[in-house]
Parts: sequence; C-alpha cells; structure tokens
Amino acid sequence: MPDGIMPPAHPFDFDAALSDGDKLKEECGIFGAVGVTDAANFVALGLHALQHRGQEAGGIVTHDPDEGFNSARRFGYVRDNFTSARLMETLPGPIGIGHVRYSTAGSKGAAIRDVQPFFGEFSMGGAAIAHNGNITNADALRRELIERGSIFQSSSDSECIIHLMARSLQRNIPERMEDALRRVEGAFSIVAMTRTKLIGVRDPMGVRPLVLGKVGDGWCLASETCALDIIGAEYVREIEPGEMVVITADEGVQSHQPFRPQPSKFCIFEHVYFSRPDSLIGSKSVYETRRQIGVELARENPVDADLVCPVPDSGTPAAIGFAHESGIPFGMGIIRNQYMGRTFIEPSEHIRNMGVRLKLNVNRALIRGKRVILVDDSVVRGTTSRKIKEMILDAGAAEVHFRIASPPTAWPCFYGVDTPEREKLLAATMTEEEMRKHLSVDSLKFISLDGLYRAVGEAEGRKSNCPQYCDACFSGEYPVTPADMIKKGFQMKAAE
Amino acid sequence: MPDGIMPPAHPFDFDAALSDGDKLKEECGIFGAVGVTDAANFVALGLHALQHRGQEAGGIVTHDPDEGFNSARRFGYVRDNFTSARLMETLPGPIGIGHVRYSTAGSKGAAIRDVQPFFGEFSMGGAAIAHNGNITNADALRRELIERGSIFQSSSDSECIIHLMARSLQRNIPERMEDALRRVEGAFSIVAMTRTKLIGVRDPMGVRPLVLGKVGDGWCLASETCALDIIGAEYVREIEPGEMVVITADEGVQSHQPFRPQPSKFCIFEHVYFSRPDSLIGSKSVYETRRQIGVELARENPVDADLVCPVPDSGTPAAIGFAHESGIPFGMGIIRNQYMGRTFIEPSEHIRNMGVRLKLNVNRALIRGKRVILVDDSVVRGTTSRKIKEMILDAGAAEVHFRIASPPTAWPCFYGVDTPEREKLLAATMTEEEMRKHLSVDSLKFISLDGLYRAVGEAEGRKSNCPQYCDACFSGEYPVTPADMIKKGFQMKAAE
Amino acid sequence: MPDGIMPPAHPFDFDAALSDGDKLKEECGIFGAVGVTDAANFVALGLHALQHRGQEAGGIVTHDPDEGFNSARRFGYVRDNFTSARLMETLPGPIGIGHVRYSTAGSKGAAIRDVQPFFGEFSMGGAAIAHNGNITNADALRRELIERGSIFQSSSDSECIIHLMARSLQRNIPERMEDALRRVEGAFSIVAMTRTKLIGVRDPMGVRPLVLGKVGDGWCLASETCALDIIGAEYVREIEPGEMVVITADEGVQSHQPFRPQPSKFCIFEHVYFSRPDSLIGSKSVYETRRQIGVELARENPVDADLVCPVPDSGTPAAIGFAHESGIPFGMGIIRNQYMGRTFIEPSEHIRNMGVRLKLNVNRALIRGKRVILVDDSVVRGTTSRKIKEMILDAGAAEVHFRIASPPTAWPCFYGVDTPEREKLLAATMTEEEMRKHLSVDSLKFISLDGLYRAVGEAEGRKSNCPQYCDACFSGEYPVTPADMIKKGFQMKAAE
Amino acid sequence: MPDGIMPPAHPFDFDAALSDGDKLKEECGIFGAVGVTDAANFVALGLHALQHRGQEAGGIVTHDPDEGFNSARRFGYVRDNFTSARLMETLPGPIGIGHVRYSTAGSKGAAIRDVQPFFGEFSMGGAAIAHNGNITNADALRRELIERGSIFQSSSDSECIIHLMARSLQRNIPERMEDALRRVEGAFSIVAMTRTKLIGVRDPMGVRPLVLGKVGDGWCLASETCALDIIGAEYVREIEPGEMVVITADEGVQSHQPFRPQPSKFCIFEHVYFSRPDSLIGSKSVYETRRQIGVELARENPVDADLVCPVPDSGTPAAIGFAHESGIPFGMGIIRNQYMGRTFIEPSEHIRNMGVRLKLNVNRALIRGKRVILVDDSVVRGTTSRKIKEMILDAGAAEVHFRIASPPTAWPCFYGVDTPEREKLLAATMTEEEMRKHLSVDSLKFISLDGLYRAVGEAEGRKSNCPQYCDACFSGEYPVTPADMIKKGFQMKAAE
Repeated sequence: MPDGIMPPAHPFDFDAALSDGDKLKEECGIFGAVGVTDAANFVALGLHALQHRGQEAGGIVTHDPDEGFNSARRFGYVRDNFTSARLMETLPGPIGIGHVRYSTAGSKGAAIRDVQPFFGEFSMGGAAIAHNGNITNADALRRELIERGSIFQSSSDSECIIHLMARSLQRNIPERMEDALRRVEGAFSIVAMTRTKLIGVRDPMGVRPLVLGKVGDGWCLASETCALDIIGAEYVREIEPGEMVVITADEGVQSHQPFRPQPSKFCIFEHVYFSRPDSLIGSKSVYETRRQIGVELARENPVDADLVCPVPDSGTPAAIGFAHESGIPFGMGIIRNQYMGRTFIEPSEHIRNMGVRLKLNVNRALIRGKRVILVDDSVVRGTTSRKIKEMILDAGAAEVHFRIASPPTAWPCFYGVDTPEREKLLAATMTEEEMRKHLSVDSLKFISLDGLYRAVGEAEGRKSNCPQYCDACFSGEYPVTPADMIKKGFQMKAAE
Repeated sequence: MPDGIMPPAHPFDFDAALSDGDKLKEECGIFGAVGVTDAANFVALGLHALQHRGQEAGGIVTHDPDEGFNSARRFGYVRDNFTSARLMETLPGPIGIGHVRYSTAGSKGAAIRDVQPFFGEFSMGGAAIAHNGNITNADALRRELIERGSIFQSSSDSECIIHLMARSLQRNIPERMEDALRRVEGAFSIVAMTRTKLIGVRDPMGVRPLVLGKVGDGWCLASETCALDIIGAEYVREIEPGEMVVITADEGVQSHQPFRPQPSKFCIFEHVYFSRPDSLIGSKSVYETRRQIGVELARENPVDADLVCPVPDSGTPAAIGFAHESGIPFGMGIIRNQYMGRTFIEPSEHIRNMGVRLKLNVNRALIRGKRVILVDDSVVRGTTSRKIKEMILDAGAAEVHFRIASPPTAWPCFYGVDTPEREKLLAATMTEEEMRKHLSVDSLKFISLDGLYRAVGEAEGRKSNCPQYCDACFSGEYPVTPADMIKKGFQMKAAE
Repeated sequence: MPDGIMPPAHPFDFDAALSDGDKLKEECGIFGAVGVTDAANFVALGLHALQHRGQEAGGIVTHDPDEGFNSARRFGYVRDNFTSARLMETLPGPIGIGHVRYSTAGSKGAAIRDVQPFFGEFSMGGAAIAHNGNITNADALRRELIERGSIFQSSSDSECIIHLMARSLQRNIPERMEDALRRVEGAFSIVAMTRTKLIGVRDPMGVRPLVLGKVGDGWCLASETCALDIIGAEYVREIEPGEMVVITADEGVQSHQPFRPQPSKFCIFEHVYFSRPDSLIGSKSVYETRRQIGVELARENPVDADLVCPVPDSGTPAAIGFAHESGIPFGMGIIRNQYMGRTFIEPSEHIRNMGVRLKLNVNRALIRGKRVILVDDSVVRGTTSRKIKEMILDAGAAEVHFRIASPPTAWPCFYGVDTPEREKLLAATMTEEEMRKHLSVDSLKFISLDGLYRAVGEAEGRKSNCPQYCDACFSGEYPVTPADMIKKGFQMKAAE
Repeated sequence: MPDGIMPPAHPFDFDAALSDGDKLKEECGIFGAVGVTDAANFVALGLHALQHRGQEAGGIVTHDPDEGFNSARRFGYVRDNFTSARLMETLPGPIGIGHVRYSTAGSKGAAIRDVQPFFGEFSMGGAAIAHNGNITNADALRRELIERGSIFQSSSDSECIIHLMARSLQRNIPERMEDALRRVEGAFSIVAMTRTKLIGVRDPMGVRPLVLGKVGDGWCLASETCALDIIGAEYVREIEPGEMVVITADEGVQSHQPFRPQPSKFCIFEHVYFSRPDSLIGSKSVYETRRQIGVELARENPVDADLVCPVPDSGTPAAIGFAHESGIPFGMGIIRNQYMGRTFIEPSEHIRNMGVRLKLNVNRALIRGKRVILVDDSVVRGTTSRKIKEMILDAGAAEVHFRIASPPTAWPCFYGVDTPEREKLLAATMTEEEMRKHLSVDSLKFISLDGLYRAVGEAEGRKSNCPQYCDACFSGEYPVTPADMIKKGFQMKAAE
C-alpha cells in the first residue's frame, strides 16, 4: 500500500537531472558506526559522502542505553535534513546505522515507509537493518511469510530479512540473522545493529561493496572508502564476499561465514561509474582505473581529432587518460551549471532541448571548428548522447566522435541498480554501427570487455569461463539467477 | 522505536488549550463510507465533524479497483490537510475509512507510524482498520505475537488485531476479524475495510459509540451522528453492542455476532462532555440531555444568586437548563477568544494567569457586584477552575458558586479516554468540601450519580446492582477488567 | 505594483468563513506600548485580543536604543506568527506598535508591502505608523505627492501620512505629524512611534475607537479595552475625538489638538457587531448594549414562538435579551464547528449548502416542530440568512422568524469597513417585506434606528438634526464627505 | 530599518561554502527581456544562468497591458523559486527584468525589501530598476534626498536612482533616468523597464559587464553571454561603456550617451574568476583566457613537479593551460562533493578541517608521493589555501607548489564586489615570500600583472600610465574615487 506521501521536490543531483533516466543508478549507500560519541553525526557525514549512491531519501537509526532505539527518515538530501541540531538531538547514542536510497525504476511514487533502515522488535530486543543491493528471491520469500502471518509494512527487500529473523528460533540476534541469510539469494551488502552490536554482511559473491574503517576507539562500515575519509577514519579492509562481521565497542571485530563459499564477482560498473573517483576499491584508485580506461580506449579506438572533451562530470578521468595516451589536447568543451534544479517552464517554441541547456552549456569558443572527441562513461538509452551531440554541432564543431568508457550496456542489472527495461537499452537492439547512425555522429566506439578488464588490473583480460567480475549488464551472464524476474517474464540470454 | 518525527505545532482546540490537561479527552473519532463516489471526500468531511474527538492527527485509507489501496496520514487538523486537491487525488475509490486521534497521556512525542488506520496485506488481500477505545489485554497479546515472530510497527492497540488476523486460518477477512476479536478484551468501536467491504464493530458492552448512516446509494459508519449530518446522510441506527456489520455496495448491511452477549454499558461521559451537543445518542439529543443535567443540578443544589454563567463552551447547555429551572438570569460572563493558539511569551511579572487570559476574558461589566453561578461540565484536576474563579473575583463578583454537570471524577478511564493518573484527580483525594476550600469558592456542588442518570432518561436513577451505563470514572466500577493496567500496578476499588 | 506574493492559506475566522462576504468587516486593529520591557510581547498579546478586527495579516515595529528600529510583518494570525521566540527576539526594545488588518473589498490579492505599520526615515530619525479607518482624500493626496517626487511603496492610506511628514519643514516628528494630519480628511485612529515617543490620534469626529491604558510603569494604546485586559493593563480613558496624545516613558501623556473641533460621531456599528462583547465603549459594556438591543427588538417586534435561537456567535447577546424580554425560552438551535477551515472538496451532488454545513449544524432535536425566532446581528447580502433558514426548515422547524439586531444596512461604509457595493446590499434595493419574501421566512423584523439609539443609551433616540453617532450605513448620512469615492462615481443620498 | 525576516537557509553554492569568505564575490547578475511571450520565463532562465553572480536572493518584475506591473522577490536560488507555475502565472507580460544578488559584506541579516528590482510609480507611469555594481556617492545622495522628503524603503544604491528619477522634471522616463544618471558616480550596469521599454546602462568606464542579445522578435540584456545561450538568444554586442540603450518591441534598440566620455576600464577580475568560463567577454572566451593565464603562469614560474592539480572548480582551466605549457600531467587530485550543504555538526575532536572535508576530498592514490602543483584562481585571506595544503600533505604529497592565476589581491573592491576589509587580505600585509611561509608550502607564485594583461590579449602588457582594465584590487589604482568609503575612513594608496 503506497502511502500517499509525495516526496518533497528537491534539487536534483547533476547526473540524474541531466540524464532523465539515461544513467544506470546505484540504488543505495550504507554506513554504520559503533563505539563513538554521538554515532548519528558520524553516520550523517558518512551518508553525505555516499549521497551519489542515492539522492531520494535517507534514514538513520541509533541506540542509546537510556533512550533506546530512535530513528529519523526523510526525503531529500542528507545535508538538508541531518544537519539540524533539533533533529540530531533525537538520535543519541554510541551506535548507529544509516542509508541513502534511490527510488526503484517503475515505482510510482515513494513512501517514507520504504525508506530504510528497517526496525524490528524481537523478544530478546530490537534490531535495525539497511542494505544495498537486491534479494533475488524476495518475492517468493514475501509470499511465504505473508502466508504464515507476517505483516509487511514496506515494499523493500530488507523487510524479508527482518521477518525471517523474527521467526528464527535462535536465541540471539546475530544467529537469527545467519538463519535468515541462509534463506536469501542475491547480491547485497548489509549493515545492521542491535543495542550493542554493529553487523556487516556481503553476499557470497561480493557483488556490492562494503568496507571496514577504524575511527578513534570505534569502528565503522561503509559502502565506499570516501565515507571513511570524511570522518577521518582509517581504512582497514574490505568485508570479504560471504563474510558477516559482528562488531562491538569492547570486543572489536568478529568474522563469521554464514554462506557456502562461491567465486568472487564484484560489480565492474562500480569501477566505471557508481563509485566516487576518490574511493579505493581493494587497493585500486577508482580515479586511476578510470584514467586507465581512457588510455585503453585511446589504444583500442584512436581517431585523428583536435580536442578531447569529457561529458561532465563522470567522463573526466577517462578523458584525461584518453588525452594523455593520444596526445590530443584535453579541454572543458562542456560547462555544467552548478545550480541545477527543477524543471523550468519552457518559454516558447524557440528553444529546443531546454532540459539539457539548464544543466550544460557548450564552451562555444573552444569547440568551434574543432574535431571533438567526447568521452562519456556509458550509453544507456542514448537520449542524452543525442542532445549533447546536437549542442556540440550547433556550436560549430567540425566532427563529433564519441568514445565510451564502458562496453555497450545491453542487459539490465537485477542486483540493486536501477536500469531501464531491456528494450529501452540502446545496445540491446542495435549494433555499434546502428547506434552511431542513430546518434548521427562521425564515430562511436566503446571500450571492449577485455579492455575494461585490463584497465581494472586484469592484465590477461576477461576469463570467459569464469569472469573475475559481475559484468552481466554487458555480457548478459548473471552470476546469481534473478529468480523473481524470470517468474515475471524476463528472458535470460540463450546459452551459446 | 519512536521515530524522531515531531508533530508540527498546530493551533490548539479551545478546550484542550484552556485546560492544559484539565479535561478528560476522547482519544479518537472514526468514520467509514462505501458505495459512494470518491469516498475520501466523505471521510474527510466526516472526520472534520468528529475533530473534537481527536485533534492531533488524522488518517484516511481508500481502495480503488484500479489504483489499489492508498493512504495518507498527517499530523494536524483535517481541515489543514485533507482539503488539498493534490492530496485528495491520491486517495481515489468508492470505499474508505478514516481516523482522528488524540495523543495518549504520558506518551513522549508522537510518530506518524502510530496514526491510524493501520493496514495489513494478507494472502487473500489487504485490510485497513481504525478504532476508538482501548484493548485492555493488548500488552499481553503483543508479547505473545512478538514471541511468535510478528513485527510491530506501531505502539497502537489496533495493530494487535491486524496481526491476529494475519495469523488466522480463516479464508476470508471478515471471518479472520471475528477470529481476532474473540481474543481481545476491552471497550472499543472499530471501522475496517477490505477491497469491497466496510466493516463496523462495537465491543460486547457497547462502551464506545458507532452509528450507521445511509448516503445516496451508499453507506457510512461514524462515531457520532453529527458526522452524518455534515455529509447529508440519513441516520439509520446505532451499531448494537457486540455487533459486527459487514457492508458492501451491492448487498448492503449484514449483521454478525462475534461475541458472547453481555449487558450494555455505554459511556455516560459521552452524554456529559465527549459528544457534540448536536449529536443524537440513541434517540436522545445530547444538547437536551445536557440542558436536563442543568435542570437536575438546579433542583439538587439550588443557591440564591444573580447570574448563571457557563464556562464556555461546554458548560453552556447545562447553564441554560440551570437558569431555566432556577429562574436566575443566564448571561455570558466569560467570553472566549476565537483565535486560540500557541503559547505566547509572557511579557513580564505583571501578568498572572496569562494562559487563561489568552483564551478567555471576563465580561467585567456584567460580573461586577453579582453573585455568580458558574456552570462547568466537570472538575478533573481543578487547575482551570481555580484560574477562572480568580478571574471572576478580580472582575468584582460578589460571590462565586460552582455547579458541576457531572459527579466528582475520582477514577481514571481505561477505555480510550485520556485521563490523568488517579492521584492527580482532585476528587480522588478530596471530599466535596475539601475541594470547595481548595478552590476558595462560596459553594461547589456536583450533580449526583442518580441525578445524572435521571437526566439521561433513567427515571429511577442508577441501578446499583447493574448500572445501565459505564460510569467507572465516577464510581470506580469497571465493567471490563483493565488487565494490562493492573499488571502495571493500578489498584482497583476495594469490594465493599 | 502588487508584489506577486500570495498570502499563505490560513484557518478562517468563523464569521468570515461563514458569511462569504455577508458581514461587514472591520478592517483593522491597532495597538502600541511604551515604557515596558520587551514591548513586542505586549503588542503581540494586544493584537491577539484584537484579531477579530483583522485576520489577514499583522505587523509589529519596535525600537531599541542599541538595535534601532526593527519590524516583522506576516500574513496569518498573530498566534501563528508572533509566538515564535526566534521571531520575537528580532523585535527588542521598550517601545512598539502593531497592526492587524483585513483586506479591502475588491482588492485582488494582497502584498506584504501593504501590511502595516509603515516606516519612514526622516533627517531627524525614523517613525512608524499604523491606522484603523480611512483617509477619504487619500487618492488626491497621493496624486499630489507623486507629482512632487514621492515614491509610494504600498497602496495604503497610511503611507500618505508618512510622505506628508517627510516633506514637512517642522523640526520634530510630532509636529511633522500635526502638519500632516491637517492635510488629511476621514475617519481614522492612528498609533505611531518615534525612537522614544508613542503617539495616538483619533479623527476629529472620533468615528473609530482608541483607548489609553496603564500597564506597570508604562502606557499602551488600543482599539478596544479587551486588549488592555489581556495584558493586565488598567483602562484609563478613551482618546478624545480630534485628540493627539504623545506619550513617553518619562513624561507620560501629553495631549494635543491638531484639528478644528467637530461634533462627535462614533461608529454605532462598533456597538452592534465590530467590537468584542467584553470590551467597554466609553463606560458602556458592549455585551450589555447588545443584550439591550435584544430587549428593544422584542418590544418593537414581538412574535408568538417557542424558541429564541441566536445565529452564533455574534447574535447570542441580543438573543439572550430577546428571550428575557419576551419570556420565550433561549436555546442553542445552531451549533458551530470549532474547527473551521478551508473549503473542502464537495463529495457529490447529494449535498447542498456544504459551505454552511462545514461550520454550522442544526440541533435537530431541539428545533423539530418548534416556531423558532432567529436573532442575528445584521443582514448584509442575505445569502447566509437564506442558508440558515433552509437548514432550520430542513430540521423540521414549524415557523422561522428573523429578528435583526441592527436596522437595514442600505449604504456602504467608507470609513475603514469592508462593505459590498451598494447594489449588493439587500436593503438598498428591497423593502422589509420584499426581503422577507426573498428569504421566504414567516417574519423578518429589524430594530428601528431609534430603538438602536435607545439601546446604546440615548433615551430620546436619534436626534435627526445632528445624530449622536455615525450611522451612515443605515441612514446614508455621511458625516465626512467621501471625496475619493464620489470622484469614482458614488452617488450620495439625495437631500430630502 | 531591517525587517526581521531571516533568509531561509539554503544550499550553499560550492565556492562560497568552501571558502567561508575566502573568495571575492560578485554581488549581482541582471537580466531583461522585451518583445517575447511570457518574459518572466526568459528572465528566470537568464537569472538561473547568472546564479554564480549572486546566490542569496532573486527578483523579477514584469508588465502586462492588462495586469499592469507585477513582481516577485525571494530568498534562495532561482531554481527553487521561479520554477513554480503558481508563482510564474503571477508574472505575465511581454517585458520583464530580473536580478540575483549576493549579500554585502558586513550587512547583518538581509531583508526582502533589499532584494531588487526596485519599483517606483511616477506621474507618467511606473518603472523598475536593477543594477550590478556600486554607486560610489550613494550615501551623499541618500542624505540629500531624505533631507528633501524622500522615503527610502531599502538600503540599496538602486533606490537612489528611483528617487532621483521621481524628482526629475523631465516628461518621460528615459529622460528622467538620464537626469538621474548624471548625478551618480560609480561602476555599475543597469537594466530597467517601463511599461513598454527595456533600458540598459553601463557606467562611463564600463567596469561591470552588460551584453545585448536577440531572441526571436524580441531583445534581451544580460550580465554575461551564458545567459543568452540558455534561452537560445543570439549574441549581438556589448553595451558600450557610458551607453544607455532604450529598447522597444516595435522600434528596436536606440542608443543614448548620457555621460561624458571616459577611458574604458573593464573589471579584469571578470576574466579571472567572476564570469562563467563559457561566457564571452568582447569576442574573447573566458575559458580560453583562463587557460592562457595558466600558460603565462607556467612560463613565468616554472617548477619541476609530477602533477598539475586544479583547486576545483575555478582553477581548472588555468591548470589545463599550466599542464599543457609545462608538459607536466594534469590530474584531478582534489574531488569535490556535488552535494554541498549546510554546516554539519562535527562529531568529535578526532576530526580537523571538517568544513573542507564536507566539500572536498583528496584523491589520495593519485597524490601520494608526488610533487604537486596546485593551481588556484586567487588568494584572498589564505584560509582555504592553508586547509587544502594540509589535506594534500596528509595524503602523502612530496611537495606542494601553489600557482595562482591572479596577482596578489591587496586592495578591496568598491565597485560591486564583496571583499574583506583591507587588513584581512593576505597580500595587503605580506610579501610573496611571507605568504609562502604563512602557508608553509614549497613554493607560492602569482601571475604578474603584465602576465595577466598578456593573457587577456594585451600583447604589450599593462600600460601603467593608463591601464586598459580596472585592476584596483591588485594595483590599488581606483579609476572612480570611492567617495563614500573615503568619508568612512578608507585610505587610498599614496601617490608614488
């Protein structure tokens, strides 16, 4: 039952506003802290650093020995909600978790009840949970739980885990969570908390990220290392695929293995686009990886031109790499307006493409007469690429060459990423040449899958029998069967 | 887990603002409609007419064949929330229920999650439920349900019923509700709905009210008849004590009897104060009953005086009756400010009793030199009575005589009414004469229990072996054992 | 230039919401204080008590030796704006004035810039001013001032006075104000302030009210005495017609006479409706005057009936008087909903007169079968009277007799009261009998002008050669020529 | 009189939030359009493109033949206010002007009354006016006008012009404006409007920018060309220094010369920082000029290093130029958080420099072990430079070399730019070497004045006898005497 609460209109984030559904969007960022004074402040800062992973809403739960559990969930940016002293005072205590989320594709409207973390009261005390990713058998679990008398309050996958925990016969919460996790399939990272324990989990293949940090005498968990930097925490290590850590202020980190071991399949698109460039994945800099993608792209698909121009802001590191490798000058041919916002009322028929003009303007003097290489991170539906191409040509470019820092996105993601339906993905229905014609550009080239693997450090490229990453959005090879989606009619790639 | 959402400050209702906890407060009003176009509009109007039963928050759930279930819950007045076209459009469909609520005494803060109606999805479809009253074994039921794996999302009694229904093995929702009702004890009226059925229930003793109305081809249920008047509905009858009605647009009203029969015990305080004077209870006008209370009061406790003055607004009908019976002129000696509001900042020590001055002013020219009879509906903690007496004396009254339209309130209500703890009730610790001295007035008289029963139409007065009404707040005789409260330490009246 | 700022929707006041333009509306209330700690708090309280004189907006200006002049102006109720500690802290100082206002008929939209008090900086310091009433030559003055280079920032009459003061050659502000006042014609009361002086003015005929109070060591000015009561101030006296008082904390009250003496013409409608019943006018209680109007009405126009019922709330005192004089029982046959509000969306064609039903409900059990006398304060356009009559008949009344506590309102007011255009006044185009037929009631009677004068204490009735009051709305005899309106085409009553 | 209205907290713009007063800030952007359908939409879009010139507040005035003048003024971003259909509908008509503003240094609080455009009603009709810049004799003019009876409603310089116009004896508004302009001194650009005429003015030296565009059949004026791009307008030309253009829909552009001719002195800091990189100044691209500054900087002050890193975002073009010229790789060593915001509550003493961390994070993997050249646009107070240096060193940089794209800022600007007092400018009290030590960096070099002039296209550098630009902030040579400031005690540079 969607609650008729409309999320308050809020300033858009840049890429989302620009792309109008023309980007893959990470659906969530998670953060937790324990053993610190006023954990909520740390959580708010961590979520602020993870805001790029979800802009629609955020929530924080804390526990204080005197005040018990408290929570606050809000639509809008962390900075606009969780900076109010009046609100933060309602979230006392040394332990807390938080969540930022994006709305799921196709959901009509959003309800505050769907904003995580979720909370459940068990006979031995309460627990809160937040996740990033997707439980691929959530529909089936939900049906089974409802049949047995559970009442769901949200449409979120996380709530299945809480109900499974409520019905577990184990006597403590971490064991109940292990019980519950054994029933779920999918690609997810979790932060959870009891009155004293901070818990972190990664799915058996480690598709979604989760890192451990040390801050003073306390500990924290975060989707990305940039959230450690903002609070001055030291990066300790990644949570391992399939690992569950239980952390207390007194006893530190204990590691559990609730799942059967499986090969690691980290999401390769985190390197391409989702993660912030100043984060580390493993020991690799995301920025450096992206720069290297630009280098590979220049090697694979060179072109004679006058200017390498990033599509701001996500294309910048690859464009720098491309320029460096190719020797063609790098320049900011497209300038973004920092004051993005809601849709303006278009003044008249004189103006085409207002949507893009509000956010981007072409640096006409730089572009005029030049053969321009535009470096973008991905092509999803192609709508933005078309508009940018037109702006560049209107400004007098002599040629336009697209170079894309990822392979063609031909398959939807079912692991916690908001993707258009398959038929709306340009690469699902067109060849590279067809796409080039569709965009009416002089050339259009994508990095190869092998090139991408090389850029992330796999010198030998992709091992096709057992890929080192989850690259389903490019390859159609899904490491976890998307059971619920298949039931709803999704056609897997035919075995070759 | 209280969600750290503060209810927005809103304009107070008059009596609440005046009394600062010195009134008993009905905790809820409920309304439902089926078989009408845009049921939400009817529900909003009905709740507006019932606003005196709960000012803190309101909620509406509707169902539409195309749009499914939708809900909206808001802090504040119905008029301030459910008059927005943008919001009402999110609540389509021919069936809906709604609720207005008062916060429970002692609860610190309120959360939107505690605002009714509540909703649960069962395997055969969803149901929403709202109630007025109290389930006296709710704590025990909640503990049991949590033990078995139910996750509670609110602190409300209603949620127990939803969870009991979720675990029932019956195959349709009305039968599941009958199952659930057999487990609950207490004093309550319920409106509930499925996709097509509007359901109304009164507890076995009929402590709380619920009436049935016909509006066009559709039907409605409401706490009071004034909510039928506002939508132009025809008053059909009261739902009987212990009755459950299931109403559909096509088949009309079907009556069920889920409970064992018990003697009727309607809340006599509904006559004295809770209900609106323009409502009917049974076939009796509330206004006329209150006027008759004034008549009885004048007969039982005459006094020689110059003016009969109501404490506005609830004392007015009894004052009219008192004046009529005694032959002493009726006059508006106390004028209320229609623009009530939040607490002002008191300008200086010059001003005593600012709180009351903001809401009431004495009509000094009328009062000066007169012997004044003040007619009020009840004395709870006595704080307001003291302030009013002081204002009257400051204005130059020669004598002040209080006449109270109810017997001394000496016991708390556990059936859905917000009452101070027993030790804060003036009449729990003082005799009538002690109260008179405490208030420093020339006389203070309460109507007798028998007088009150006569005024409501029981010519023989109260049958002490089996009282015709619930009058526990006066007599200490509780028709339903308040099990949860006894467990928490409440001492029942010793058997005589 | 209207600034496109829409006043935020706010809860209506009762009578305004009910009448939909069917009441005459006082346009303003004014208050000032000097020689007190935190004058703004006193001003806010005084304005709250005067809220019935203007609900659309309010403003306060204060002066503090350190902080200089500060102001705040807001749409909405005093209680909703001037109770915020954050706002009140911006208004420090021992001297302040304030204003509540109603919007003028016909003005489309309102701008915060039209909300008083107005402020002007002169070479010898600043002054703020607020008024209640109307300057009848404001248009001409404004044209002249603009011609000479003054820039107006509002559409308010008060601003003329500020500009006249700015151009005066006098060396101090009170003398500049005297200069300015000699140029203006009309009916107005003024409160003004400099850094240290509180100034009060009444027009030469004293049409609009202004009273002086003493609070601790300080002083205050107010439109009505009820605003003295709320702050615990002692009522000293009325400002005399044509008097200007200049008050300082140290030297107290000095009286000036800027105008040529003229006969006093206080607005008789203040007695009938505008003032609060708990105010005193001169030494007369407004409540008692209204009760006496009811007595006169019963004497002039007796009728055999069963019930005297006020149209709430303004008809109540006259109904009490009528009942007392006639011996017919008084009863609350119409009950108002205390939770007035914005327009609801009407659910369907089943419902007639929703507008009235939202605010009033008939006490059907009391009305049924009775011959009912409805006592109302006035008939302006007659629209509400019709709706109330229908509700009463629908409820089963046997007869309906209207008794109106004022003579027929046949002429517009140009002295600071919002009146419909003359052709919309029912009494401007119909005889009493035609009005009776128009309303379809069994009888309709107004108090006579002489009866009204007797009720306000003029034992001999109205002196037709020189009426003791301004009664232009009844008689068409305007004591001050409405020059601007005549220029706009208004036709005065032909001399007889 | 400051009106006690607090501007609502709003999301900061990036550079302002980062710098905490450590940037010079342009105080205003202006825009006007005539001869277009719904001019307000064009104005809103133009102001959105100029938002970097003023983030605190914005206002729009329009005129419609039927609806007359209308205005709306709001605190906050254009995108958050002027995108509401409900508001924009209140601003009809084919002609309009608008303004975005920054608060002036040292002003405590801001009032909506200070938000431009200003409006005045004259005997021949109304006019609205908005300006960017400063009137250097405004204080004297204001005193004189008040002495003669003008009432000021704001603290803005623009209002002087309106009052001077109101007192002019000329018979039409453009001539009155010429009259007024002859009295004012300073550096300013103006857009103004009557019912049918759009007017643009630049001060005699052309210190502040103003450009003319053609959009469909209509015309527009804007502070920068980027505001033409957003509405698809064609760039026609700059308004000349000392020129006043009067534009109507029918007769097009007429040019007037109200001032005595003076040598042109365009603000050179517009090239360095104020203007958007995608704007043109004259025929020169701002981006290209900044890139060229980087080239000059690399030539003047080479250093052996591993990485050229811009301080985002304003340092980027110069860093690109520096990298290109020096051959040292360009890299994004500092990543900004796109979700800037209000001040967070700092969690504990563990965290230093939270303010900067919220907005910037170091790309540690890129920086570690490298000798880093940081390219920034200017050093004002030096506080941000210190924090950034610390972050870079914390991340493991081997050396830090600052290269600044402007000469030392040693003098305040009095021509419409918000500058700290002179003693707070680092360069006012320290030599370059002292600054280097103060910042504890390995080297610190500023571009020379001659280098800067070369970069903007003056091949011969600065003509010291008559500089081609206003460079007072670097040189202390003020082309217009800041009369009001000198009266307040400002010490001009001693003649050499």
